[in-house]
Amino acid sequence: MNDTDLINETRNEAEEGSYKLERSDVTAVVNAVERGDQGLLSMLMDPMHPADIADLLEQISTVERRKLIHLYDREFDGEILSELDESIRDEVIAILRPEVLADAVRELESDDVVDLIEDMNVTQQDVILDALEDSDRVAVEQSLAYPENSAGRLMQREVVMAPEHWTVGQAIDYLREQDTLPEQFYHVTLVDPRLKPVGNVTLGKLMGSKRDVLLWEITEAVFQVIPAMQNEGDVAYAFNQYHLISAPVVDEDERLVGVITIDDAMIVLDEEHEEDILRLAGVGEGSLSDRVINTTKQRLPWLAVNLVTAIAASLVIAQFEAAITQIVALAVLMPIVASMGGNAGTQSLTVAVRAIATKDLTGSNMWRVIRREVLVGLINGVVFAVIMGIVGLVWFGSPALGYVIAAAMVINMVVAGLAGTAIPVILEKFGIDPALASGAFVTTVTDVVGFFAFLGLAALVLL
Amino acid sequence: MNDTDLINETRNEAEEGSYKLERSDVTAVVNAVERGDQGLLSMLMDPMHPADIADLLEQISTVERRKLIHLYDREFDGEILSELDESIRDEVIAILRPEVLADAVRELESDDVVDLIEDMNVTQQDVILDALEDSDRVAVEQSLAYPENSAGRLMQREVVMAPEHWTVGQAIDYLREQDTLPEQFYHVTLVDPRLKPVGNVTLGKLMGSKRDVLLWEITEAVFQVIPAMQNEGDVAYAFNQYHLISAPVVDEDERLVGVITIDDAMIVLDEEHEEDILRLAGVGEGSLSDRVINTTKQRLPWLAVNLVTAIAASLVIAQFEAAITQIVALAVLMPIVASMGGNAGTQSLTVAVRAIATKDLTGSNMWRVIRREVLVGLINGVVFAVIMGIVGLVWFGSPALGYVIAAAMVINMVVAGLAGTAIPVILEKFGIDPALASGAFVTTVTDVVGFFAFLGLAALVLL
Repeated sequence: MNDTDLINETRNEAEEGSYKLERSDVTAVVNAVERGDQGLLSMLMDPMHPADIADLLEQISTVERRKLIHLYDREFDGEILSELDESIRDEVIAILRPEVLADAVRELESDDVVDLIEDMNVTQQDVILDALEDSDRVAVEQSLAYPENSAGRLMQREVVMAPEHWTVGQAIDYLREQDTLPEQFYHVTLVDPRLKPVGNVTLGKLMGSKRDVLLWEITEAVFQVIPAMQNEGDVAYAFNQYHLISAPVVDEDERLVGVITIDDAMIVLDEEHEEDILRLAGVGEGSLSDRVINTTKQRLPWLAVNLVTAIAASLVIAQFEAAITQIVALAVLMPIVASMGGNAGTQSLTVAVRAIATKDLTGSNMWRVIRREVLVGLINGVVFAVIMGIVGLVWFGSPALGYVIAAAMVINMVVAGLAGTAIPVILEKFGIDPALASGAFVTTVTDVVGFFAFLGLAALVLL
Repeated sequence: MNDTDLINETRNEAEEGSYKLERSDVTAVVNAVERGDQGLLSMLMDPMHPADIADLLEQISTVERRKLIHLYDREFDGEILSELDESIRDEVIAILRPEVLADAVRELESDDVVDLIEDMNVTQQDVILDALEDSDRVAVEQSLAYPENSAGRLMQREVVMAPEHWTVGQAIDYLREQDTLPEQFYHVTLVDPRLKPVGNVTLGKLMGSKRDVLLWEITEAVFQVIPAMQNEGDVAYAFNQYHLISAPVVDEDERLVGVITIDDAMIVLDEEHEEDILRLAGVGEGSLSDRVINTTKQRLPWLAVNLVTAIAASLVIAQFEAAITQIVALAVLMPIVASMGGNAGTQSLTVAVRAIATKDLTGSNMWRVIRREVLVGLINGVVFAVIMGIVGLVWFGSPALGYVIAAAMVINMVVAGLAGTAIPVILEKFGIDPALASGAFVTTVTDVVGFFAFLGLAALVLL
């Protein structure tokens, strides 16, 4: 094969390289599996990115998945396992033959192996660990010694470092002499004699600088050191806030022990977002591929909490049974007041929870934000009070009923702004994740206040 | 100054470099501003990261902000503007003296300038564009020629490329001869003679390979080319899905025109997440620093939609006024059925919206997911039906009322699972953002079905 051939081949590979999992791909793969056509299956799946293969495996049924893996397992890429959703991953690992699993895992970087096995039980972990070479196993075991969700778990242990007094020329020569460099690295980290990191030099800067320039003269302006015990959420926040590409990780003695790169941080950030959005809706850590029974169990506690709060609201209604019996219009209109309050409260709540997560809502501006949300609630409350007043009047022909529902609307929407902001702030102060618990509290407040204000005023004014 | 002094100075700078905005920092800055102490203010703010200064400016009041900028404006960093929330940014730009603004903007990379001015009106844009040097202005204007939210707007135009047939040695020599290289770059992009990108070589790989190795032999396995007209959301998805660090951008003729790096993609991803979470709660694009009147306007349409759906539910109740007058317990219990359905529906909905955003829920698995959610709804429905049946019996002493509420609960929670999944999928098919509109539809369905099933069954069985 001459150069031109090789180049053409590269180009073809590159053209295949624009990935995207289409519905037609999934159908084609499922058809190949049904027909048991191993050759066609390989032809279809080999150009796919492991992340897309993982998505494909998540989208097909359990039976199809089992057949596919039996047909395809000789060439199973370890990265597919890394990309798979946890529940499907366990299933796939159980199906893979031990030697295929061992091959797949040996291909992975040590930080990916950690990510893969940290949620497994000890027996499963041992199966994977035994498949690794000694040096890799030690690296994985050392990472597992750090607490879950810590920077120590997230980091890779291979670091490219240089003494702080080196020149560009010395660093380049050193790098070019190395037999193996890490797969992914973007910085040379400068360390002092006690291995404390003191600055980062980007590879681009190194390339573009004269040989006699000192490394510390071209360190990046932005430099963030991460303690190994730091929570991964804070690590992801730092990457996002300061636009980091990689950051050195240090132990308690401030010695360099590893490095975290942006791709790891991005995964954590994505998980944190998912957690926030699901928790706000009262869904635990669920995913589409969880089994029905697990999903049912995850959602049940939140529904139970909601049942208790709904009953609390009903107890308020029960206090006004006499009024409702006399004026049945109250029963017709009361859910509107509660529903509008609940919606307004959820709006304030979501903005507040998101602002707490991005550290935009803090002790410094809490009171200003609460004042603002109450004001927004008041203005929108007045707007909808006028509308509902008119609706009440037209529908039931009673001006007094119109006044009552209007007043209740204003009260409930002001309370919604207050509760929607104050409750997550208070939960955060007590160290409770505001996304997790605020929703139930806020809608309880708006339901109880809504029914009480409307029915209470009605009882006072109309009876 | 000798070497050791310089090194010590570097180390001190690095120690300052562990950023974090604390409440005490905000208080200290506000105090310095109150006292008009320019020296102290500079001392406090100079070590801060621009992203933290932006957060600080967002957290203090308008009056404090104005005073602070007047005291600090001689040293105003352009990056602070990039990091500021839009509403505050406009305010700050209006306060800054023209020459300070010009200095600040000139420091920025052209893609950051694009991000800064793309939402401004033409007059404001011209002020900024006039401050730029000619070459930068042309680059910014070319980027602005691409549609909003396109890859063309996101990319930087400075690309490091090499002919596909070069060796490692040739590439290194070429890079070392350049006077200026881009601030941030991670790959050398290989191009064919028509400037079509055919592969990426990481700088690390370049450093670690022998001089006579051909570049195409060490290209990255994962290679994704991005069309300049692609939507930025799809770009961010590709970076997240395929763990890209940088990717070449091409025009319609597949010629290389720019490069997008992961930090830009991460910002887009963060914005998309924010949009999803806020839209699910019926909040537009709001932020804490928006003015009250803007926030009120943003939230009003969603509350209006909710009012219409709440009235629709009330109309259902109104059909059963006679039943409620006879058995007032129906009015007490009916919100429970609706509320549980609404909660279960929101759970299914949130999982579905999130799964659509991450492309985990597609045409391929839609029916399986719907079946699964309906089953989850059924199981949880039965559980809460039993509980509520007992509650109904104990509270009101009527077994028949217990059966009715139990049956209504099962019906509504099954419908919740169905509507919560099917509605976002259908909206997505019609090209409507499911996060934006699903909530109102789903709760309308669960309210209407909840009230109708409970009151209808009650009217049939109990009267």
